[in-house]
Amino acid sequence: MRVLARYNHDLPELRKDPITGRWVIIATDRAKRPNDFIRQPVPAPTARICPFDYGSEHKTPPEILAYRNSGGRDQPGWRVRVVPNKFPALGIEGDLDRRGEGMYDKMSGIGAHEVIIETPDHMATLADLSEKQIEEVLWAYKERVSDLKRDRRFRYILLFRNHGEAAGASLEHPHSQLIALPVIPKRVQEEVDGAKQFYDFKERCIFCDIIREENTAGTRLVTETDRFTVIAPYAARFPFETWILPKRHESHFEEADAPTLANLSWMLRSTIRKLDKVLERPAYNFIIHSAPVQDAPLTYYHWHLEIIPKLTKVAGFEWGSGFYINPTPPEEAAKFLREVGLP
Amino acid sequence: MRVLARYNHDLPELRKDPITGRWVIIATDRAKRPNDFIRQPVPAPTARICPFDYGSEHKTPPEILAYRNSGGRDQPGWRVRVVPNKFPALGIEGDLDRRGEGMYDKMSGIGAHEVIIETPDHMATLADLSEKQIEEVLWAYKERVSDLKRDRRFRYILLFRNHGEAAGASLEHPHSQLIALPVIPKRVQEEVDGAKQFYDFKERCIFCDIIREENTAGTRLVTETDRFTVIAPYAARFPFETWILPKRHESHFEEADAPTLANLSWMLRSTIRKLDKVLERPAYNFIIHSAPVQDAPLTYYHWHLEIIPKLTKVAGFEWGSGFYINPTPPEEAAKFLREVGLP
Repeated sequence: MRVLARYNHDLPELRKDPITGRWVIIATDRAKRPNDFIRQPVPAPTARICPFDYGSEHKTPPEILAYRNSGGRDQPGWRVRVVPNKFPALGIEGDLDRRGEGMYDKMSGIGAHEVIIETPDHMATLADLSEKQIEEVLWAYKERVSDLKRDRRFRYILLFRNHGEAAGASLEHPHSQLIALPVIPKRVQEEVDGAKQFYDFKERCIFCDIIREENTAGTRLVTETDRFTVIAPYAARFPFETWILPKRHESHFEEADAPTLANLSWMLRSTIRKLDKVLERPAYNFIIHSAPVQDAPLTYYHWHLEIIPKLTKVAGFEWGSGFYINPTPPEEAAKFLREVGLP
Repeated sequence: MRVLARYNHDLPELRKDPITGRWVIIATDRAKRPNDFIRQPVPAPTARICPFDYGSEHKTPPEILAYRNSGGRDQPGWRVRVVPNKFPALGIEGDLDRRGEGMYDKMSGIGAHEVIIETPDHMATLADLSEKQIEEVLWAYKERVSDLKRDRRFRYILLFRNHGEAAGASLEHPHSQLIALPVIPKRVQEEVDGAKQFYDFKERCIFCDIIREENTAGTRLVTETDRFTVIAPYAARFPFETWILPKRHESHFEEADAPTLANLSWMLRSTIRKLDKVLERPAYNFIIHSAPVQDAPLTYYHWHLEIIPKLTKVAGFEWGSGFYINPTPPEEAAKFLREVGLP
């Protein structure tokens, strides 16, 4: 096998995610820069009739929450509007009814699936909205989680946003989604367990440690304010994966206070604008990672927001192994995002 | 919230994967049938010059293994040819050199990344090859794993195939890939641990139980022979996810004997042809799940092959949670595959 040595240039690195223990291959030799990815900018919205526009309120299930300038329930005049998903992945009524089926286990698909319509402006993208508008979207997130968590059947509430068809968005009108689940998803449990292990060993929150480490090292830092740190994580699974972490320790997103949400709005907006500029308006997903809703405040878990631009295709290797190959070292991604100028 | 009841039709089901404990949402109400997916058939290969064709052997690194009718090393005349990946994700030379970096852990990206060129015929797809030809591909898998596992640095060897651009294939010439890793990937470890837990409790292999259960129930059974069972798994993450399981308990793929490989070739070929017919030549990934290579034979783990047609986009929800929504119940997928006629 010695003959193969000449095909090895710089060795890639295997990096371990400190929270979950997941190993990731970070390519160092043929590192991909922003221009190396095949660009597929998310096209600008088209002006067709949409159930999320003013005047189409009757096309959605009745609204659960709205912030309004005028109008009554299910009328135009809202700024942010939350409705049940018309085609929900889970149903809100009924009992969990855990039961066996042969050797297997199942339960009824009880949960909530809501859509947060972020603006009446069909033609906007999240990054086009004002800070104030995004702040209201975040308030809607907080309000809905706070309401739903009183239903003790729900053990986890996921807040996420798919932008662009490649990221799984089926409607172009700006919106986020919320799914309340009767079980704690496996990846979430792993993250919580990993953070707890670290805490048991060190008596410190691992996310607080990461924030300190990254603010000091600086190489993976995108930006920071008094309240937030934005980084390209050390063991990023995806090129330009970006995390927004609150500096103050808090396990549950829904406990965030007004100044935190105001600052998060600024951070989220500027981070997406940076990604848009460096990667030419990529499709992306973001997900709020927060502690299981029925848990009391946790010393060892720390909510944060993870943004994943959709630049590469996930292939058999990743599905089969949960082992990712990231062609862009996070240090390079952070540098591009740090240096890009915003108007 | 009672007002929402009318938007709930049949409740979806939450099903638990018996091996890993992962919960999956299986839609029952708006179940997607094959015609409901947006078809994107993998286009037929184009006849352009390719480094995997006869006469281009010098464009790849020197071959590691070949089955030939004629010709010498790195000459035309081969039927199956294995070469190092010219752009490997990992390098074969060097020490692991485990070390810290601040609070983080890393090691050198030591491993092997090989390409199994399945045929000199650029214009073929795997399903076009003869049973004999696919059998030789499987022999190449077995030989390469058996050789590489003697290198004690390698703890896991992944065999996988990406078909079609949507599934991550960057070259259209029929090929599979092998990656030897110095760590056991997280998803693999979870599967092995889950199977061990079941064994500790029941003193039986969970995969052997699944095979018995599915052959008896029949509702998720696609086909079976003396040696193999093909099923749509109970908690399938993806529509038309299909598993091929050997009936005889064996933990390591590379221990499969000649009659097993011959029968697997038949099974794999007919299963992919069924998927091609029902789903109109979809992009797909398949992955061989096998025990960690340095382990002795395991009573509790059972190698198998998982095929995932690429029909849906994985969105933020799935990334954030490891929690999948499958719009096609496996019972329906199995029925379509069972009933499709092959010439």
